[in-house]
Formats: sequence, C-alpha cells, structure tokens
Amino acid sequence: MTNTAELDVTGIGHAIVDVIAQAKDGFLALHQMDKGAMMLIEEDRAESIYGDMGPGVEASGGSAANTMAGLASLGGKAAFIGKVRNDQLGDVFAHDIRSIGVTFDTEAATDGATTARCLILVTPDAQRTMNTFLGAAAEFSADDVDEDLIKAAQVTYLEGYLWDREAAKAAFLKAAKAAHAAGRKVALTLSDAFCVDRHRDSFRDLVDGHVDILFANEDEIKSLYQTDTFDSALQLVRGKCEVAALTRSEKGSVIVAGDEVHVIDAEPVDKVIDTTGAGDQFAAGFLYGLTNGYGLARAGRIGGIAAAEVISHLGARPETPLQELVKQKLG
Amino acid sequence: MTNTAELDVTGIGHAIVDVIAQAKDGFLALHQMDKGAMMLIEEDRAESIYGDMGPGVEASGGSAANTMAGLASLGGKAAFIGKVRNDQLGDVFAHDIRSIGVTFDTEAATDGATTARCLILVTPDAQRTMNTFLGAAAEFSADDVDEDLIKAAQVTYLEGYLWDREAAKAAFLKAAKAAHAAGRKVALTLSDAFCVDRHRDSFRDLVDGHVDILFANEDEIKSLYQTDTFDSALQLVRGKCEVAALTRSEKGSVIVAGDEVHVIDAEPVDKVIDTTGAGDQFAAGFLYGLTNGYGLARAGRIGGIAAAEVISHLGARPETPLQELVKQKLG
Repeated sequence: MTNTAELDVTGIGHAIVDVIAQAKDGFLALHQMDKGAMMLIEEDRAESIYGDMGPGVEASGGSAANTMAGLASLGGKAAFIGKVRNDQLGDVFAHDIRSIGVTFDTEAATDGATTARCLILVTPDAQRTMNTFLGAAAEFSADDVDEDLIKAAQVTYLEGYLWDREAAKAAFLKAAKAAHAAGRKVALTLSDAFCVDRHRDSFRDLVDGHVDILFANEDEIKSLYQTDTFDSALQLVRGKCEVAALTRSEKGSVIVAGDEVHVIDAEPVDKVIDTTGAGDQFAAGFLYGLTNGYGLARAGRIGGIAAAEVISHLGARPETPLQELVKQKLG
Repeated sequence: MTNTAELDVTGIGHAIVDVIAQAKDGFLALHQMDKGAMMLIEEDRAESIYGDMGPGVEASGGSAANTMAGLASLGGKAAFIGKVRNDQLGDVFAHDIRSIGVTFDTEAATDGATTARCLILVTPDAQRTMNTFLGAAAEFSADDVDEDLIKAAQVTYLEGYLWDREAAKAAFLKAAKAAHAAGRKVALTLSDAFCVDRHRDSFRDLVDGHVDILFANEDEIKSLYQTDTFDSALQLVRGKCEVAALTRSEKGSVIVAGDEVHVIDAEPVDKVIDTTGAGDQFAAGFLYGLTNGYGLARAGRIGGIAAAEVISHLGARPETPLQELVKQKLG
C-alpha cells in the first residue's frame, strides 16, 4: 500500500467504556450472572448492577477503538468513528482515545440512550464476568459516518459487532463505498463466532462484495464457511478478498493474499494473564505493517507482537509502547 | 497421481535392527554415553556395549523402512531397498519387513560389516539413549538399486541419512534417474537437521534437480535454507519442488504444492509416549494418500493420523492397523 493518505486507518465500531470492579461470588448470584460470560443487558439492568457495584475503575474500550489505540501505540495515524452520548462516560471515552493521539470527532448524541458501558465484575478467582449495555453505541447510523475521515485513511476498519443492527449496516455500506470511491481499502473483523452465526449470509455477501482485508479468528472463519477444519476454511476464504489474516491463538496466524500464503508463529509469552483484546491488537499490528509499507510476513509478525503484549496483562489496550517493542524484536 | 503402477512406493534407506534393553544410569556412565542422545558408533564399540547389556528386545527399524511399514499398515503396496549382512540380525530385519507385506529383495552382503543395529538403553526415567552402528547399511551402493522396483512404484522414497556416504549418493542419483525415466516421482526426507547441516549445498542441489516430493520437519527446512522463521523457510521452499510436506510436531503440518497451500492441524493425542518415528509415519500416511488418489489436504490428514498413532506408544512402527484408524477418523 502506498502512503499518500493523511491517516493510516479509520476504525468504526462500538464506543464502550469498561467499568471494572471487584465483586464476591454472592454478588454474581444476586444479579443472576454466569461467571465468566458476556451478556448484553438493557439500561435499567445496567443502572441496577452499577448501583450495587463497589468502587470501579473506568477504562475506554470497544473492539475497533482498542485496535485504533494499538495503532497509535505503534506510531500509526488513526481515527475512530463511534457513538457516545453527551454524558460523563461519553466524556471519559472521548478523553481517553484522544489522549493517546487517535482522532475522534463523532458528535455525541444529545438525547436517546446513554453511553455504552461494559460492567466487568472481577471475582477473587480472577475471572471476569461482563455485562454490556450498548446504549448510544448501538444507535450509530449512516449520518455518523464522517466521509472525510474515510477518504483520509488508507484503510477503513469495520467492527463486525455493529452488524447486529440495520442502521449500523447501512453505515457500514456507506463507509465502504466512500472508501472505495476514494481509492482506499476496506477491512472487516468478524468479531465473534456467535455474531457470524447470526449473520452468516450477509457477512459472506459483505466479504465477497465490499471487503479487501478480512480479519477472523479460527472459530469465526470456520463459522463463516460452516466447516470443521481450519484448512478447509482457509481454502474457502482464499480469493474471496485481497488479504485474509486468520488468527489462531497460540498457533499464530495464517495470512493469505492471492498467491502469497504466510504461516506466522505466535510470539512467545511468559504468562498469559488475560486474552481480552488479542484479536484487536493483532489487527492493529497487521494494519500498521500494511499501511506503513511492510510486507505481509512482517505485518503478521507485528500483529503477533502486539497481541502478545496485550495478553500479558489485564485489559484490552497496550501498556508498553508497541513501537518500542517492535523495534526491540524486529529491529 | 494416477495408479497405473504395481507398487505405491519403493523406499530406500538404512536397514537397521533396534536392540532395546533396560539399563541403570551407571551403565550409561560406564560406557560414556550422553543420556537421551544418538551417537554413531563403530562395530567394536557396538560389540562391547552389547556384551554388557542386559536381555534385549529386537525390533526392525530404520527411517525409510519404518515408513514402508506404515504404508503397508495403511493398506498400501510398498517395497524396501536397503543393505543387511547375511547374519542373524539381517535375518530378523528381512523377516520383519516381509511379514508385514513389504517387498524386500536386496541381496544380503556375504562379507564386510555386519547388519546395522541401534543399541537403545532405556533408563528408569523412560529416556532412550541410542548408539547406532551402521555396518552393512552404510555399504549400500548403486549396485544395490533394483531398477525394477523403482520402475514399478509410483514414488521412490529416499532417506536423507544415506546422503552421508559417497557410494549411497551415487545410488540415490541412479534411483532418481531410473524413476524419472519411467515417468515416476522421487520423494526425499531430509531426516535430520544435523544431516542437513553437513550436506546443505548438495541437499539443495538434490531438491532443485531431482526431488518432486520433499519431506522435512521445521528444524530441517530452516537448516536447509539457513533461516530463523518457519514462514521464511516456507517461502524459500515454495516452487523448488512439486510438493513440500513440512511437519511441525504439535503445530501439525503445512503442505505446499504450486498454488496450493494447506495448513493441517495435528491429530489430538491423549499422551505422547515416544516421539520416535513421527516423521516416518507422517510420510507413510502422506504418500499413501497421494499415491491412492486423495488430494493434498486429505493426504496430510492421513499423515497426521499415522504420526499420532506412533507417538502414542513406544517404538517407531504402528501397533494399531492404520487402515482402520484412518477409516474411523475420516470415514
């Protein structure tokens, strides 16, 4: 990819603030939560849980937003488009993502649902139980797509989670068309095997018709093509888009682009603490490599380094500047 | 590959009998052995160790011979060419390989070194310390190449270990030329990273000029192309021969053939008991698949199933009929 754009990547996704607090097992029982699971909840339930929670730590999150944070940490130029409400958590989200150097201009909603939050209860056994209220993030629509940010970026990166709502689908297609009209590339992450399961046919159409760079983990790509083995999914995705970057946890990643196929080992990790955000950071590293003129093999390795960093600690955004880590490891 | 040949594969390699006995650590110390290592030894040392060893179990071995045994266990039609002496261990080798249905006609030497043996000491910690006396096996020469067996087989399979001796190299080239002249394929296994290290340039020439199907594990292919990552070795071997089947232990295998690339997962194994023979049995399964008209992906899976069987027990040849195992797993 040639770098004539002002931005490397513009990401579009859910703007979510994570609210993390410690809790005893009894708290989960009281609120009928399944330990370790992620549940989508409505606002009244979010308020009720939040009211009962102990003192929390707020940290901006969201899959594509995490990827843009990783891109900035690598020294890349990133923007994010996503919906918050003009409330306190909305301010937190905007502050955090801007403070790390990511352009974020999406207008906050002045009415409707409040800013999305993911209430995370950490029990004494270190398990994370998540309750996500999508709120304003789910009201994202075509009107929120800032075409200038799309045109300015080499790649527009779409978070598959948004595909759950019709208005967000329309926004996706608008963004993809604007990107292609400007001679830019469109990337998609499938986000979640259940999400793929809910929207298999339309995801396939999206991949066939609008996506240049596809990110998927092993479960997601198997679900997309309804097949049991990684290799058969690999054969099926080949040729469907310009580049497919398939992540396989400790098995590393496989990158397919036309005739090119790369089998990249996972970076060694001393101890895996929290796998949240591994896929998001792989995408950050890979897109950084691609938009900064490295080949597919090196882009895959940068992705692996970013993913290894984020699973070595709690939380879904990098703690060590990724730019330095990559320099250390790859020179 | 179309099956117009009488045989699927003719293997050429060292004809070795394994002699396995239990030993205490003190025995290893007394005979100055490094626990867990494989050492090449001369006949007088072999006699001296054997004289001191406790009661042993004899089992025919040798890398390519093990592969032919696997092929027979899969229901394939195999022959083996390799040199024994007309002595007791030579009789054991010939008996064993014929009894499982592999054609073995190489004339036993009537003078010179005795039949090759690998003296294996199993210490109470289950480690195997190996002492290989190559004897008659290393005297294999072009005169021993039975061109009828080469012409009769779809594939001639060469064991890289033989490449250590000039006379065996000449035999290899004679076999490769005879195979190609008859419109057949030539396969090679690199056998050992140290072996590759000793003969890197001539192995590269062999691969470039004479080999259609290459087998190598990760260490071997990295050593062949003097590179640090699996992916760069993969890129370098691509296009050098018709098919490269690269094995990666618990990471499975990668098969490259022109435009086709397959990433095959390892078969699950309850408990790894002894990894000896994993590469030999992978080659057996893969060659069986290829010569019986299956595609590369299925051939790779059969290789994985055969390798998984052999690492689940002591010893380098299958204990469960592989044909049944494959039927169970792949239908």
